[in-house]
Amino acid sequence: MIAIGIDLGGTNIKAALVDKSKGILRKTSVPTEADKGKDHVFDKIKIAVDSLMEGSDANPIGIGMGSPGMVTLDRTTVKNPPNLAGWGVVNVSNEVKKRTGFNCIIDNDANLAALGSSRFGVGKDFDSMIMLTLGTGVGGGIIFKRNLLRGTTGSAAELGHVIINYKGPLSNSNTRGGIEAYLGQRFLSRFAAKSIREHPDNPLYKEFLNNFDQLEPVDLFKAAENGNQLAATILQKTGEKLGYAIVNYIHILDIRKIVVSGGVAKAGRWLIEPAKSKALEYLMPPFREGFEILYEPLGNDAALYGASSLALEHL
Amino acid sequence: MIAIGIDLGGTNIKAALVDKSKGILRKTSVPTEADKGKDHVFDKIKIAVDSLMEGSDANPIGIGMGSPGMVTLDRTTVKNPPNLAGWGVVNVSNEVKKRTGFNCIIDNDANLAALGSSRFGVGKDFDSMIMLTLGTGVGGGIIFKRNLLRGTTGSAAELGHVIINYKGPLSNSNTRGGIEAYLGQRFLSRFAAKSIREHPDNPLYKEFLNNFDQLEPVDLFKAAENGNQLAATILQKTGEKLGYAIVNYIHILDIRKIVVSGGVAKAGRWLIEPAKSKALEYLMPPFREGFEILYEPLGNDAALYGASSLALEHL
Repeated sequence: MIAIGIDLGGTNIKAALVDKSKGILRKTSVPTEADKGKDHVFDKIKIAVDSLMEGSDANPIGIGMGSPGMVTLDRTTVKNPPNLAGWGVVNVSNEVKKRTGFNCIIDNDANLAALGSSRFGVGKDFDSMIMLTLGTGVGGGIIFKRNLLRGTTGSAAELGHVIINYKGPLSNSNTRGGIEAYLGQRFLSRFAAKSIREHPDNPLYKEFLNNFDQLEPVDLFKAAENGNQLAATILQKTGEKLGYAIVNYIHILDIRKIVVSGGVAKAGRWLIEPAKSKALEYLMPPFREGFEILYEPLGNDAALYGASSLALEHL
Repeated sequence: MIAIGIDLGGTNIKAALVDKSKGILRKTSVPTEADKGKDHVFDKIKIAVDSLMEGSDANPIGIGMGSPGMVTLDRTTVKNPPNLAGWGVVNVSNEVKKRTGFNCIIDNDANLAALGSSRFGVGKDFDSMIMLTLGTGVGGGIIFKRNLLRGTTGSAAELGHVIINYKGPLSNSNTRGGIEAYLGQRFLSRFAAKSIREHPDNPLYKEFLNNFDQLEPVDLFKAAENGNQLAATILQKTGEKLGYAIVNYIHILDIRKIVVSGGVAKAGRWLIEPAKSKALEYLMPPFREGFEILYEPLGNDAALYGASSLALEHL
């Protein structure tokens, strides 16, 4: 069985033809050009699908699509997606069907990353797992007994907006001290820049003096690997905050497998080990058993795999 | 249909004969005397059941029992229950069956308070709800689509151990800044005592000078009702902390009905209104719709109703 998986992002629309047993057969990407409005974006989706199907004899059963923002329980409609300004409430399934002829089912992008990991990635081994997409924002998806836990309206697993310090900084939402305010890429870069500015003798100071906004988690990772103690400390403090959030997820859900992906996860063990050790310190003892943090090697493709899995299982 | 519900507490064993449609038919309570050891406690359970059945022609289908601590997925066995020192891992169902002849099924006491509210209480109107038992400790139970959400091992909903400030005070667990460290009765009393000591002109100072450990949430409630601004402020600050925790539950679970019971809930609107208003401030906008905090009028009986519901539905 074959389905089309689409990952609708604020910058790019990625699409893939996915075979249930063979995985991704082919893949394409087009710029979203979200600033040109909703209709333009749907036209771009049509272009992506056409380019994917061109010269293919595959007969996909339909389209599964991941979208930013909150998706209704019936998996047709998105509400006020961030990064897609002016959308409001849009029945995406109808719009896509109208243009491509394919039936279309959607869900939140982080939910689909979780589903992709569960069906095609490191999550295959677990009945239940928690996915964290550590990027510009911090997204989450919860797989419980092989299915997405979607809550009463489809909006569950806003794991980036879990408070770990009610006196903490504001993030892009109105929640203070949510984990995204520490771990979101820009927040992490800002925190790193502040720390580095205080240490003009540190090699990172010279390297990023004029472009601190270019500083990426992977730069901190590389510096830490090369023995830069400041970089290691920055990642350690950030990782510990992830640890507190993980304690909250596990104490509420009793799901102990945590899977991470996204740009910030590229900070690697320098981020993840402190998260793990702080979580182990704060978890109630029975919850420590079986607790693991794992990387998703599918990376950004996890959402494409999840999107196609949604179509394969529900269309 | 009739079942026996038992609420096994560290101080008292409460038991009730519960009719599925008529509710509690009769009720009894015996001291647990937990210090005399496990066998003694099971003998006391037998005494409670005998006293309940004496002169009754009811034919209960079995016993449902709420226990402190973590209960295995098969609902037979409790692990290291707090307040029942030295128990370790005990197959409660076997012990109760041996002594009473009744089949017995168990779950965590806060889970059963949630189930009781869902079947007989204010939770009847909701498919999904979150129960908070605000007593010495803060317990939690999650009803999702009419059933308890128990997690991968049966230990989900440790809602008292959700961090709202990783720099905060330690509670009885090793989690720092968990909500129990602010809202657990002793923690609240200690916080109140500290605030009151700083205001020797306040009427509460004279009233509780020599017995601050007797200060109960209901005293703060009464003082606040009588215009005591300090009492109102203490409850407000504590309620706001509850609000942060509620934000975390709702952002993770997308369940918007919060039901509270227990001694601390007696602080009433002076505690609950600040919780509500802080939660509304910090919740992402879509989660505000349908958000409510409700009192459970069943009070401590909620656990008895839940225990019997467990038996009625699973034996």
